[in-house]
Amino acid sequence: MIILLDMDGVLADFEMGLLQTFKSKHPEKPCIELQDRTQFYAHLQYPPDSRQLIQDIVYAPGFFRNLPPIPGAMEACRALAQSRHELFICTSPLSKYEHCVLEKYQWVEEHLGMAWTRRMILTKDKTLVHGDFLIDDKFPIKGVRTPTWEHLLYSQPYNRSVQGKRRINWQNWRSMIPD
Amino acid sequence: MIILLDMDGVLADFEMGLLQTFKSKHPEKPCIELQDRTQFYAHLQYPPDSRQLIQDIVYAPGFFRNLPPIPGAMEACRALAQSRHELFICTSPLSKYEHCVLEKYQWVEEHLGMAWTRRMILTKDKTLVHGDFLIDDKFPIKGVRTPTWEHLLYSQPYNRSVQGKRRINWQNWRSMIPD
Repeated sequence: MIILLDMDGVLADFEMGLLQTFKSKHPEKPCIELQDRTQFYAHLQYPPDSRQLIQDIVYAPGFFRNLPPIPGAMEACRALAQSRHELFICTSPLSKYEHCVLEKYQWVEEHLGMAWTRRMILTKDKTLVHGDFLIDDKFPIKGVRTPTWEHLLYSQPYNRSVQGKRRINWQNWRSMIPD
Repeated sequence: MIILLDMDGVLADFEMGLLQTFKSKHPEKPCIELQDRTQFYAHLQYPPDSRQLIQDIVYAPGFFRNLPPIPGAMEACRALAQSRHELFICTSPLSKYEHCVLEKYQWVEEHLGMAWTRRMILTKDKTLVHGDFLIDDKFPIKGVRTPTWEHLLYSQPYNRSVQGKRRINWQNWRSMIPD
């Protein structure tokens, strides 16, 4: 089987990196704790006067490179790589790609090793990529095609209202993906 | 239909950029003119004492960003984008990704416009990407799957010995791709 792994919110802890940076750069501003996040895009949930601050953090050099791994994700990646499945990292860069694109490769090299950078697929349209499963925290995932993969929704506070998808996380994944 | 366009050797003139840089940096060394190139990888055709020089040029900052467009390619892209087909740029970055990855996006933005960067798919394995046609100068194109696309071989001097593929170039493409 071919398993596609999304990166932000599945391997790299985008929300944790964003919250920590926001708190440290703007301690006087109200922030939204991770468990209180209810929308996929943080800047849409923050007060209007913080939206540009959120964007500035995400677009700044070093943001993607310095994201912490999601707890359990690196161990799951290494276990999956030892299985009979083919693994790829399928990630959509920001439209403002300047730092994001290179730093995603650097992040994978740092946390998983150089060989894993060969598994990377960068695309705005994941429906074009063949796979049996796509593990992704975003919903819905749109594109030009009907995908071949089943979207397993990686559970995060901001997607808890999504209905009708099988959910996965790095604690329960072994029961979701056949050996 | 979904048409996947390779980048180096199809949109961006990798061989021309390499030859011009080699001549200017190493005027004392023998070089191989474009029409005399017979192997896909230039460093394998150059004399042993020039192979590292070739690699150094390709890995240097600015190499990918400064490649000239293949004659006719930008016009063909714009014409295809006006057609009913879906177009994507499907390109494999160097394993030494440091400059190549970002510069490929910059090249597309410069020569085709920012909106085209959304059409980019970076992957080492193109067999995973769904399409009806892949226009690519490399042969063979290997990966984990049997591709859905027909590989139309973009004709270049270094692939002229390849047999059994339909060939395309930016002069004859209209007869190869249905309206």
